Amino acid sequence: MSDLKTDKQIRKGHPYHVELEPLGRRGRFLPGVSVMEMARQLGIDLISLCGGAGKCGHCKVQIVKGQVSAPTSAEQEKLEYKELDHGYRLACQTYAKGDLVVHIPLESLSTPQRVQVEGIEEDVIPEPLVREYEIRMSAPSLSDLQADDDHLAEELKQQHNVTCLNMDTLVLRKLSTELRSQNWRVQATMRDSELIAIGPWPTRHLGLAVDLGTTKVAVYLLDLETGKTVASKGIMNPQIAYGEDVITRINLVRRGSDEANRMQNLIVEAINSIAAELSAQVDAGPEQIVDAVIVGNTAMHHLMLCLPVDQLAYAPHVPSVRQALDIKARELGLSISPGAYIHFLPNISGFVGADHVAMVLSTGISKAKGVVLAVDIGTNTEICLADHGKMASVSCASGPAFEGAHIKFGMRAAAGAIERLRLIDQEIEYHTIEGRKPIGICGSGILDTMAQLYIAGVLDKDGRMTENHPNVRSYEKGREFILVNEKECEGSAAITITQQDVRQLQLAKGAIRAGIQILLNEENNSEDDIDQIIVAGAFGSYLDISSAIAIGMFPQLPLDRFNQVGNAAGIGARSALISQTKRTEALDIAPQIGYIELAGVPNFGEIFLKALSLG
Amino acid sequence: MSDLKTDKQIRKGHPYHVELEPLGRRGRFLPGVSVMEMARQLGIDLISLCGGAGKCGHCKVQIVKGQVSAPTSAEQEKLEYKELDHGYRLACQTYAKGDLVVHIPLESLSTPQRVQVEGIEEDVIPEPLVREYEIRMSAPSLSDLQADDDHLAEELKQQHNVTCLNMDTLVLRKLSTELRSQNWRVQATMRDSELIAIGPWPTRHLGLAVDLGTTKVAVYLLDLETGKTVASKGIMNPQIAYGEDVITRINLVRRGSDEANRMQNLIVEAINSIAAELSAQVDAGPEQIVDAVIVGNTAMHHLMLCLPVDQLAYAPHVPSVRQALDIKARELGLSISPGAYIHFLPNISGFVGADHVAMVLSTGISKAKGVVLAVDIGTNTEICLADHGKMASVSCASGPAFEGAHIKFGMRAAAGAIERLRLIDQEIEYHTIEGRKPIGICGSGILDTMAQLYIAGVLDKDGRMTENHPNVRSYEKGREFILVNEKECEGSAAITITQQDVRQLQLAKGAIRAGIQILLNEENNSEDDIDQIIVAGAFGSYLDISSAIAIGMFPQLPLDRFNQVGNAAGIGARSALISQTKRTEALDIAPQIGYIELAGVPNFGEIFLKALSLG
Repeated sequence: MSDLKTDKQIRKGHPYHVELEPLGRRGRFLPGVSVMEMARQLGIDLISLCGGAGKCGHCKVQIVKGQVSAPTSAEQEKLEYKELDHGYRLACQTYAKGDLVVHIPLESLSTPQRVQVEGIEEDVIPEPLVREYEIRMSAPSLSDLQADDDHLAEELKQQHNVTCLNMDTLVLRKLSTELRSQNWRVQATMRDSELIAIGPWPTRHLGLAVDLGTTKVAVYLLDLETGKTVASKGIMNPQIAYGEDVITRINLVRRGSDEANRMQNLIVEAINSIAAELSAQVDAGPEQIVDAVIVGNTAMHHLMLCLPVDQLAYAPHVPSVRQALDIKARELGLSISPGAYIHFLPNISGFVGADHVAMVLSTGISKAKGVVLAVDIGTNTEICLADHGKMASVSCASGPAFEGAHIKFGMRAAAGAIERLRLIDQEIEYHTIEGRKPIGICGSGILDTMAQLYIAGVLDKDGRMTENHPNVRSYEKGREFILVNEKECEGSAAITITQQDVRQLQLAKGAIRAGIQILLNEENNSEDDIDQIIVAGAFGSYLDISSAIAIGMFPQLPLDRFNQVGNAAGIGARSALISQTKRTEALDIAPQIGYIELAGVPNFGEIFLKALSLG
Repeated sequence: MSDLKTDKQIRKGHPYHVELEPLGRRGRFLPGVSVMEMARQLGIDLISLCGGAGKCGHCKVQIVKGQVSAPTSAEQEKLEYKELDHGYRLACQTYAKGDLVVHIPLESLSTPQRVQVEGIEEDVIPEPLVREYEIRMSAPSLSDLQADDDHLAEELKQQHNVTCLNMDTLVLRKLSTELRSQNWRVQATMRDSELIAIGPWPTRHLGLAVDLGTTKVAVYLLDLETGKTVASKGIMNPQIAYGEDVITRINLVRRGSDEANRMQNLIVEAINSIAAELSAQVDAGPEQIVDAVIVGNTAMHHLMLCLPVDQLAYAPHVPSVRQALDIKARELGLSISPGAYIHFLPNISGFVGADHVAMVLSTGISKAKGVVLAVDIGTNTEICLADHGKMASVSCASGPAFEGAHIKFGMRAAAGAIERLRLIDQEIEYHTIEGRKPIGICGSGILDTMAQLYIAGVLDKDGRMTENHPNVRSYEKGREFILVNEKECEGSAAITITQQDVRQLQLAKGAIRAGIQILLNEENNSEDDIDQIIVAGAFGSYLDISSAIAIGMFPQLPLDRFNQVGNAAGIGARSALISQTKRTEALDIAPQIGYIELAGVPNFGEIFLKALSLG
């Protein structure tokens, strides 16, 4: 904000400081600017079908702190009393009356960057393991015959009091040439006591954080000095071509090392390509990336590292490697700075991997006072229950149904996907991503549909679809419910949800609910004991908590006990990248997280069957 | 030796314990066995042209300790009084009268294994950095879900009190599979706190020591547990194809990284092939080699590591890397155990490299009380003067003349090479390697010839050849001296030594003598102050010290001040391989060794000119 603008604003009145979470955008606004407009000015587009008239009800936000204008009649109509009570408002109807902190539920966002990279940027103090130093040296002469390595080590000590105990081989291979071509003024990059890069001073140093999901891969480029994310991108995991779930991929690589290498190459090439793309966005090269952190579930971790997976595929499902690893990027084929390391955070056990450690790290549940449940929803869903710091975890094979897989009209969260749906009497209201013509339905839309159909009585508790609704019809495999008819689809087939889709969703949500129940049973907790439920992951950020409660995926608890935090694993990976303290914390946390192998729970079948029920 | 034989011998009389150095062979012999016969029984063939009649004088040995029979008249004729005084005897004429230690000068050896691998096997207590542990584990179960890496680390701690902080990536890639295929009983190989191999228990562990010379490469295979050399081999450095001296090779690799890689590949492939061959000799595979030490001069060191050499080629000739390095063997393409490291001993300065450190290490001159000069003769000759522990070194470009290069009939020390030569009046006596028909003349033969021609007055002090000898004749480029005439050569051309050959040798020996002089000048020492001259290196082991003194390569000092120690660099490399103490000692020694850059010595030209003189 320019000084001029600030002066002008101050003349017009006292500006309020407004903070929009979880995206971390901040600004100062004069009275008379709606929250929707504030968001727009800060680069955040909220869903608005009615153009800010308070009629569509999609621009829902939560006022976390501060005074705002009283609810309008439009808001009283669109929002439930309970929601108003918990600070939920429509952004287009709400005006600040002082400094504000506003939470924007991700489902209210409508931007093309609705990918899996978002999340709260934690306020971590940057203290990177990799640091750079400017070194000025004199050229050797007949009276100073010191070898170049000794010379540099001595100057590091003298000029910066840094002890160099080791120099990377590839750095050594260019050391002498670089010292001379830079005329004896260089940037020495140290990782602890190892020289990992040498080059011109000053060179900006970047770090790469990767959240390696079964379905999605989120890559973040950070400035190591400021600790800020300077670019990010999410892509589909290219290994999907070899199987949507981890078991299929594991069975493939068990055929031989060629398959294992091919699987690894796929992901390495993808990361290389994104690293180059993101670097270019900030006018840098991937060789400026001098540190990296990768997190993923145990299977993704093992596939990335070409570790054996046989013992993971079969009970008792033990990982080959749990401990944290530091591996030269080049050993894995990663095209970043030749001397850089990749840090793999530690795994937990079974399929519960480093991504869950990163999530626990970023959400701080290990230090939370009460009973906190953290659910990271993905193709594999990992759940952790922290009971006053005592943590236990499970892994649930929730499958890719939430990604739209095995759903008749399912699709990934891309333009044209129905992502929100309401059934009001016989009327169906929906919203598609980017407001395009509907072409399918993505995870959050499927969840909404299930909930609405159950509430409307179209589905019973067991998930059976009634025939007593005008939108229900028969097709070759049973019943289905028409969401968008042929006419609306402009000639394409009607978009429906089938009885079989419902079964798929029941299996997915049942796996999650059973996992929650088993964790609660472990320490004899009841649902009511849960003080907070943290919902993480891409799908977890977009889903409508009310819908998830309605179908019994989550326990029936007040909405304000839920907290959707975005890609918490990605946030944790970023913290570990920029902070040695956080990296150490992750090492400490991981072995504290207990693990329950579902195959060893005697009444698992019973619990799972019960968890399949809706409501 | 079988018990039976021992019993029989004891019945016949009291057997004497005899030790043959520097080969380290030991045995017990009854009175009445000549030293030559003892050597034969212990597998050492001495040169014997006269069949043990005391007439050829080639089986010269030195009695270092113990009583022997009195000199025969044959010995009194063949040996100088001075030699007899210093314990030199003819092996065929000498009988033990008690326990003996006999030094066999390498020039008296006549075996096909006359290569560059011999040397005193030092009595170093094996305390290898790499150690193996037997681990027995129980299989995981639903009640023991520990990951394999955690499990192994815990058992290492519990069963052996060994802390494992790091596991090699490639070892991790087979850990789970190996634990299961070995039914949870394995051999874990630790290098300090890093797991570098996992496999069946018990597996014999080997180590590789390499002395990487400009011309010759000596490779030793050691049993890490016993510390003994179990196999060894010497080959020509295959890089010779790209230049006999280091400067030619350096200039080649300066053309680009392709050349540098090709040069490196040549040596790596050679080592790989020998490692496989030597392993096979002891019924093992190269993957059982779990540690390696490589020494070489700075240029060989840099070429092996693909380090920049520009700054080494030009004054002030500074190395890129002086410090010791530990590099994963696989990073350099060495096909030994996938997790093994190669330890490169530290360099000194200029061209004085790790091989010289190894030599100082094995000869113990850093701890010697007096003034000791150590000369490691090769294509580059490194010399160190230790003045009561204060050490200074120089590197002399002595060139490959001692290897037979640039000498008209010069050849390497192979079958048919004249290796010993005496001029008695007009008679020429010579000995060829393996007693074959003479086809050329190798380094020690050339040195003998120079000395004999100078003593006989055929060469004057300036190296000019007289015409006043029946064997001197003219050829197109000047004069030459006939060593073996056409008749003896059975139709081939006569073998001669030319005026130009003499010039080449003068340059080589002059370089060495100048180096010695500069070291002496440094601390104002005179030649007489030298208490001991250690002569190392392949050629250094075979040369006749008297000849070297005669032509002024070495100072005129009593023969007993000279000590020919064989491949001292190779011995040092082996010590550092099997002993952590020795490895640490090398780290300490290297920076203590001062370095004199000849280009910086003001009166070098003058000293060198003077050193060219014979006598």
